[in-house]
Amino acid sequence: MVADSAVTIIVLVCVAVGLATAAWFAQQVAQIKVVPGHYDEHGSAKQTLLGKSVAEHKTEDDEGHADVFTISKAIAEGANAFLYQEYEFMGIFIVLFGILLLVLLGTCHNWYSGLFSTLAFFCGALTSVLSGFIGMRIAVFTNSRTALSARRGYEYAFDTAFKGGAVMGFALVSLGLIVLFILANAYYLYYTHAFSRDHADGQDQTKNMYEALAGYGLGGSTVALFGRVGGGIYTKAADVGADLAGKVEAGLREDDHRNPAVIADNVGDNVGDIAGMGADLFGSFAESATATMVISAQSPSLYSSWPAMSFPLVLSATGIVVCFFTSFVATHLIKVKRQQDVEPSLKRQLLVSTFLMTPVAFVLAWTFFPDDFIIQRGDELSTRKEVKNYYIFFTVACGLWSGLIIGYITEYYTSHSYVPVREVAKSCETGAATNIIYGLALGYKSVIIPVFCLAITIYVGYSLAGMYGIATAALGILSTLAIGLTIDAYGPICDNAGGIAEMTGMPHDVRDITDALDAAGNTTAAIGKGFAIGSAALVSLALFGAFVTTVNLAQVDILRPFQFAGLLVGAMLPYWFSAMTMKSVGEAALAMVQEVRRQFSLVPTDEHGRKDFARFKPDYAHCVAISTKAAVYKMIPPGMLVMLTPIVAGFFFGVEALAGLLAGALVSGVQMAISASNTGGAWDNAKKYIESGATGSGKGSEQHKAAVIGDTVGDPLKDTSGPSLNILIKLMAIISLVFAPSFPSIHSGGLLSQLFS
Amino acid sequence: MVADSAVTIIVLVCVAVGLATAAWFAQQVAQIKVVPGHYDEHGSAKQTLLGKSVAEHKTEDDEGHADVFTISKAIAEGANAFLYQEYEFMGIFIVLFGILLLVLLGTCHNWYSGLFSTLAFFCGALTSVLSGFIGMRIAVFTNSRTALSARRGYEYAFDTAFKGGAVMGFALVSLGLIVLFILANAYYLYYTHAFSRDHADGQDQTKNMYEALAGYGLGGSTVALFGRVGGGIYTKAADVGADLAGKVEAGLREDDHRNPAVIADNVGDNVGDIAGMGADLFGSFAESATATMVISAQSPSLYSSWPAMSFPLVLSATGIVVCFFTSFVATHLIKVKRQQDVEPSLKRQLLVSTFLMTPVAFVLAWTFFPDDFIIQRGDELSTRKEVKNYYIFFTVACGLWSGLIIGYITEYYTSHSYVPVREVAKSCETGAATNIIYGLALGYKSVIIPVFCLAITIYVGYSLAGMYGIATAALGILSTLAIGLTIDAYGPICDNAGGIAEMTGMPHDVRDITDALDAAGNTTAAIGKGFAIGSAALVSLALFGAFVTTVNLAQVDILRPFQFAGLLVGAMLPYWFSAMTMKSVGEAALAMVQEVRRQFSLVPTDEHGRKDFARFKPDYAHCVAISTKAAVYKMIPPGMLVMLTPIVAGFFFGVEALAGLLAGALVSGVQMAISASNTGGAWDNAKKYIESGATGSGKGSEQHKAAVIGDTVGDPLKDTSGPSLNILIKLMAIISLVFAPSFPSIHSGGLLSQLFS
Repeated sequence: MVADSAVTIIVLVCVAVGLATAAWFAQQVAQIKVVPGHYDEHGSAKQTLLGKSVAEHKTEDDEGHADVFTISKAIAEGANAFLYQEYEFMGIFIVLFGILLLVLLGTCHNWYSGLFSTLAFFCGALTSVLSGFIGMRIAVFTNSRTALSARRGYEYAFDTAFKGGAVMGFALVSLGLIVLFILANAYYLYYTHAFSRDHADGQDQTKNMYEALAGYGLGGSTVALFGRVGGGIYTKAADVGADLAGKVEAGLREDDHRNPAVIADNVGDNVGDIAGMGADLFGSFAESATATMVISAQSPSLYSSWPAMSFPLVLSATGIVVCFFTSFVATHLIKVKRQQDVEPSLKRQLLVSTFLMTPVAFVLAWTFFPDDFIIQRGDELSTRKEVKNYYIFFTVACGLWSGLIIGYITEYYTSHSYVPVREVAKSCETGAATNIIYGLALGYKSVIIPVFCLAITIYVGYSLAGMYGIATAALGILSTLAIGLTIDAYGPICDNAGGIAEMTGMPHDVRDITDALDAAGNTTAAIGKGFAIGSAALVSLALFGAFVTTVNLAQVDILRPFQFAGLLVGAMLPYWFSAMTMKSVGEAALAMVQEVRRQFSLVPTDEHGRKDFARFKPDYAHCVAISTKAAVYKMIPPGMLVMLTPIVAGFFFGVEALAGLLAGALVSGVQMAISASNTGGAWDNAKKYIESGATGSGKGSEQHKAAVIGDTVGDPLKDTSGPSLNILIKLMAIISLVFAPSFPSIHSGGLLSQLFS
Repeated sequence: MVADSAVTIIVLVCVAVGLATAAWFAQQVAQIKVVPGHYDEHGSAKQTLLGKSVAEHKTEDDEGHADVFTISKAIAEGANAFLYQEYEFMGIFIVLFGILLLVLLGTCHNWYSGLFSTLAFFCGALTSVLSGFIGMRIAVFTNSRTALSARRGYEYAFDTAFKGGAVMGFALVSLGLIVLFILANAYYLYYTHAFSRDHADGQDQTKNMYEALAGYGLGGSTVALFGRVGGGIYTKAADVGADLAGKVEAGLREDDHRNPAVIADNVGDNVGDIAGMGADLFGSFAESATATMVISAQSPSLYSSWPAMSFPLVLSATGIVVCFFTSFVATHLIKVKRQQDVEPSLKRQLLVSTFLMTPVAFVLAWTFFPDDFIIQRGDELSTRKEVKNYYIFFTVACGLWSGLIIGYITEYYTSHSYVPVREVAKSCETGAATNIIYGLALGYKSVIIPVFCLAITIYVGYSLAGMYGIATAALGILSTLAIGLTIDAYGPICDNAGGIAEMTGMPHDVRDITDALDAAGNTTAAIGKGFAIGSAALVSLALFGAFVTTVNLAQVDILRPFQFAGLLVGAMLPYWFSAMTMKSVGEAALAMVQEVRRQFSLVPTDEHGRKDFARFKPDYAHCVAISTKAAVYKMIPPGMLVMLTPIVAGFFFGVEALAGLLAGALVSGVQMAISASNTGGAWDNAKKYIESGATGSGKGSEQHKAAVIGDTVGDPLKDTSGPSLNILIKLMAIISLVFAPSFPSIHSGGLLSQLFS
């Protein structure tokens, strides 16, 4: 066992390393200058990129192109405008929800809990907003620079995109950790000093304190919900609309600068895939850390040991340093030279970080826990487990390695280097219908191994240390989060870089490079989503464990009517939620298509009656406004569904029905989320595989058209409904946990039963 | 309370009514003669159909057409050939599985149980095979006659199709009931007489007897699994293949006689949608009846009362008579005169049968049960319920009316008379991608209300009478099965009639009539599927209840590791299963496309180098063989998954993990099955809506092409993977129930745990 001060030292040092790494990478990215003027002002590189002069690369419609600076500025402005509007709406909601939380907890439980929970909730929400915003800024900053670097070859482009992603990864994890650390310390001080006069039982204080701290996770996930859903609707409405009206109808290329929806599409990558995803994973981190603390506060042997209680903080902190060394492998040891190096390099990051983290987890478990301790839920002796400190290592390692396996399986199903995606690409030969059928089947199939991994992790975690084991497994999967975020952010950065290269009329070789980087990005995005849903499943289960601990439910017997009905209805919620989000994307995309058509109808015609695009100025801002409005308004109903269901269920049907509901949503949501994101990823890469010419037919062929339809269907699946489901299951669980003390008397079966009895 | 002999009298009389009704309708259908020769030999009707002479209707390519007799014969031969092959394979499997059952139960439990269970299993399998076969024969018999009647107008065509469906409905229910009745009586006699020497406790004998009787349900569902999966793969491989190669590539019409896959497509409707569906619903009936008996055999106050024990038989029997009166409404009281009458008439059947059944259920519950009785699982006092006889009425009524609501909701989401399908049709304007997105969202959304209905039914059923209440609710939903089967069979009959009309070159007006009947058929097929999955959910839960009763599990606490891991893995199984079935359809369809392409490449060309289809003889038999082979071989892996998973889980991980697995598969499978069949139904009818010209663009337009893609994707969803999921959840539950006595010692956690402990 180590001293209390060890926690402070480790956390502060690691956060310092994290922030320094982010700053260092940011400074390197910033060395590429983006200034007004045609193309870039990159000195001699301008003439000799890829060994050819720029003149050779100019295409016929080159003249119409804006420069990188202008495009980059337009994207940044669109993203800023959306985030401000989203955050404005969210701000109102967060304040109202905070008041609800305060009043419910205050009147039904006690005002101290209400106050502290609400404070933690606001801190979490604010940190999440900041995370999303910072992530977006970094991405916008890196996109144009990646496009410029792509003119110098794979090595430079990959390096820039990777470092941009790493800036986000390290900055976010460090920020989230330090805020939680400060908050936990402040609460600890306040509860142990101010409260000790009134409360005799130290463990009760500790429990109350950590329950209040769970508000931090709630705040984080609430913002993440709207970020993921709103951002997801935004990005896919723009993407689908741009594809349908521009690519399919008008025959323009992807990211053609004459497509009015193209800026909205690129803005979407930054607000949905970056800001939304950052907030999501920050939420997972905050929830897993607080869930672990709530559960361990119930342990008679852990609650009084600060080092053991703060294990989640220390594990995440050391994870930052592990990720720092891991990132060195990509930036300094084994550099990307060719297209084929990109995917292995990103995969290596996952492998190396997992490898390095394993012994670190062992040392931490060995030193931060007593040799033997007891995990137990309240007075419930049947849940009593005698745990040895190295058991915790096994649970963490289980989570860590499950995450890696899930990542690799996801890669297998979504990368066009393997059979499954190639089969999907081949099925496009017989048209869009077989493409959709094969893609759906692929998504369903890709669920099998991840679910087994999760089931084994849950079994091992629970067997060794009860619900605490599941919570620490969730910590394990998230311990290398900085690298997870890095490779997650890498994808949309490259996607945007490609867009910028196209819009500014950069040479085709440049676009080839960004396309190849982007294809790897699709795979890593799918890996990131697999990772996010895997961690969300474990986090939700840990929160579920913390919830039943808090409400003192000894068991959730699904042979009882409320529980089983809850389970069934819970399993339905992901479908309801997905129906809303998918439909929203569809409707918003239709609005976008109509706007693009309207603008195209204004294109002046030349003397032969043909459309003369050279004299056409697309109105990007209008399309941005359509996406923004659709996203902000359409995120409300699914948001309400997720936020209010557990509260309504808890109040009216009782905690037992709610427990069933949470379990149902969890087990059904996991499957849907994994299959949706893998199906979407596979369709996207099947299209890219066909475009690469590997199947014999390239862009514009019938096979390619079929692939584009699959890609378009996959968009809302992989970037809106799929990833939002992570948050659905997490958020419902943490709302239940935070509101638990205010639910009507436990075991009463809710207000409804009381009325009838 | 009534006398024991009342059961015998009611069952025999009702079965007689059912068989007489079937015979009477069959005789009416048979009055339409199908004999060799061009068109039909329908006397004067030939010249004056629809007030116009046939000559006016002849199309330019009329000469190439075969006559109704020939086409009908080809379909019948194809269907026979497939069913023989399927049953041959199934026969081997059934015998092997029967031996496994005998040996496992014999060695692990006792040989008497093994013997009686296996005998019941064979009876169930045989009855199911017979049901499927009879259904197919009736459908093939009615198809051509419906096509011929369509030449005389809506009234005649509807009447023929409806009566054909009713023949199947009444025949199947009567057959299933009488076999079960005889078997139950035989077992009752044998157990009460032969066994009374060896066994002191009468209730133990009764329990053993009904557990053995559950083998009947197992046999029925095992055959249904292969029927649904094999038939589903067959029908959709042919349908998708015919559509892709014929309609999309070669530009032929639906059911064009020059398409080599067209006979296979029509055969598919009969073997998949008719034979498979008949076996499926027979399985549901057999399982719900036996599950109810197993549960009531545990009741200390019911086991010795033959009238109370045989309530499932009596309820189903009286249901036949109720359905007999209901069918009168369609055939005699309110006849179909115009297109608009078709859907209301079918819906009215559901409503009337539900209305009539309700008082009957009340009288039966009042007379067949003691005023008060006890329902309880083994010695488990916590499950003890004091039940009044009219409680049982409420549970039955809940099931009955839930079924109706589910049917109506399904109609709302899949009929093109309402907003949802019209929205999907409108989304086709922007192409196939939005069509798919909207269709998927529609399917997800359509799950909400059915799941709430099921949850309420489960809650009410359980609250009033424990697991017995859920079993009787399942009986309720299935009590009007004869009408359910009638309107279910109606759809594929009309679909085939349309095919025959097209292939024999009947006038367009005729095809318009069969198309309109078929559109209503798509909706009723979806209603039938909603009904099938709703009943399957309740039946599975009842079986689950019977299983936990048998293994004496007091609770299934999902806070425990094996149970939760089981729940998670169980929820994944429908995905795994769907991946297999969808992919099988895709692969078989590809093989079909290649065969059709090969045949088309042989079409002789005329002097201008154009294909001269008039001189082309399509080789139907080869396409039939491809579908047959694909179906028979590809049904094996998903079949194994369903059959072996519960056995493996039970043996190696114990009954607690198995209980979690069953619950997970149930709650996840229900959602997937409902959404898959409604999505598919909606796409099909959106296409029909566009074809009707209601959206301004008709056949051949871009909008129509987009709709065809949706329809093709929907085919395997609605006719292969969706409906097979019903059987997945039922079959896993009944396998668990039947094998339960042989699983290693209860509460031990399975062989795996014993190894490690």
